[in-house]
Amino acid sequence: MAKTLILLSGGMDSVTALHWAAREHEGVGAVSFDYGAKHNHRELELAAWHCGQLGVRHDNVALPFVNDLFASDLLKSGGEIPDGHYEEESMKRTVVPFRNGIMLAIACGIAESRGAEAIAIAAHAGDHAIYPDCREPFMQGIASAMREGTYARIELLRPFIHLDKAAIAQLGHELGVDYAQTWSCYKGGVIHCGTCGTCVERREAFAKAGLIDPTEYLATGPLPTPPDTDSAAV
Amino acid sequence: MAKTLILLSGGMDSVTALHWAAREHEGVGAVSFDYGAKHNHRELELAAWHCGQLGVRHDNVALPFVNDLFASDLLKSGGEIPDGHYEEESMKRTVVPFRNGIMLAIACGIAESRGAEAIAIAAHAGDHAIYPDCREPFMQGIASAMREGTYARIELLRPFIHLDKAAIAQLGHELGVDYAQTWSCYKGGVIHCGTCGTCVERREAFAKAGLIDPTEYLATGPLPTPPDTDSAAV
Repeated sequence: MAKTLILLSGGMDSVTALHWAAREHEGVGAVSFDYGAKHNHRELELAAWHCGQLGVRHDNVALPFVNDLFASDLLKSGGEIPDGHYEEESMKRTVVPFRNGIMLAIACGIAESRGAEAIAIAAHAGDHAIYPDCREPFMQGIASAMREGTYARIELLRPFIHLDKAAIAQLGHELGVDYAQTWSCYKGGVIHCGTCGTCVERREAFAKAGLIDPTEYLATGPLPTPPDTDSAAV
Repeated sequence: MAKTLILLSGGMDSVTALHWAAREHEGVGAVSFDYGAKHNHRELELAAWHCGQLGVRHDNVALPFVNDLFASDLLKSGGEIPDGHYEEESMKRTVVPFRNGIMLAIACGIAESRGAEAIAIAAHAGDHAIYPDCREPFMQGIASAMREGTYARIELLRPFIHLDKAAIAQLGHELGVDYAQTWSCYKGGVIHCGTCGTCVERREAFAKAGLIDPTEYLATGPLPTPPDTDSAAV
C-alpha cells in the first residue's frame, strides 16, 4: 500500500522526487497523467521505466478532455511550441490551465482510496515565473483543500520547493538517477530539440550543477539570456 | 463565452444553481462529469435536458479512471448502496474520495481556457456531515488554490452554502425548475428507490418545504429518523 504517492511526469524533477522518496519513505507509489501534451508519450514511457527500476506501483491516468477542452500550445490541439527562455512571456502559451490543481486533486482521490498519507510534487524554486499553479500561494491553498477534504487529512509534500533545478540535478546525481532516461522537451520529437524553454532550462541546470549532460540535443547553440525577472513575473 | 461555469450533476441542487445562475449571471456554461457512479447515466441526461431548455453550453467530461482506481460504493466498481439516512456512518461508503476537489479543479482549467471568471458549486448547509469535501474549510482551501493558481484569479461561488435542501427546493420552485427532470437516487434504477440516503434527503426536502414532490419512488415508507448529529459528524 502506497503511503506516499509521487506525481511523476518523467521529467528530471519528478523522477528525482521518485528516487528521493524511494530512499526516504516507505510504501511509495507513483501516478502519471496523459493530458494530451505533445511530449506526453516520451515522458510516460520513461516514468514507467523508473518505476520498474525501483519496483514502485505506477498508475497512468488518461485525461483526454484536456486536449479537447483546454487552450494551450503545449497540447496536441494547440499551436507551435515557441523557442526561447523558459521565463519569457511567450512561454505563457504553453501553460495548461490549472494542470497542477487537476493532477493533485486526482492524486489526492487515489491516495485516499488506497490509504496513503501524503502526495509529493516536485515543484521547485525556479518554476514560478509563468506558472501560477507552481507558486506557494497556490500550493498552500491546494494543500489545505487536500488536508480538509479527506478523512485521512492527506498532506502535500514539496521536497524541492526551496531548490533550483541545478540543485535537483545535483541531488539526483547523488541518488544515482540516470538522467538519460528522463524527458524535458515540450516538442516531443525523437530527441530533445535543445531550443524550447524546457530544453534550455534542462541544459542550464546541468551546466550550473557542473554535471555532464547525458542528453542528446538536436541543436546546442549558446543558451539564451533569461529575461528581466520583473517583466517575466505575472 | 461562459463567464460563470456551473458544476452540474443533474440533481436538485445543481439544477437549481443552473437556473439561478441563468437568471443572475451573463454567459453561463455548465460542466458535468461521468465518474462511473451507478446513477451517472440518469443524472447526465437530465443535466443536458436543463441546459437545452436554458440554451446553455454543456460539456460532459468522462473520468473513467475514477471507477478504475477509486474505492467507493457509489461507483459501478463498488458494493451495494446502503439504505438509511444520508447522515449515517454507513453512508461514508458512498463517498467518492475528493470528488469535489477533482471536479472543481477540472472546471477551473476549463474556465481559465475559456475566459470565464467564476465557477459555481451547489454545496449546501446540509451537505457536511459525511463529506469532508463539502465543508467550508475544504471550500476555502480550493477557492484559494483556484484564485492563486490561475491568471484570471477564478472565483469559487457557493450560492447555497447557507441554505438547506428545503430552502433550495423553495428557491427552485420560485424559479420554475421542473424537479421531475432531476435525479437523486444513488442506485441509478429506472425510478428513484425512495430508501437510499439521497432519496430520503430528497423526500425530506420537499416535505419540509411544503412542496408537492413530483418524484416517482419505488418505496415511500416512513422517512427514517436522522442519527444523532454528534455521532454522525466526523
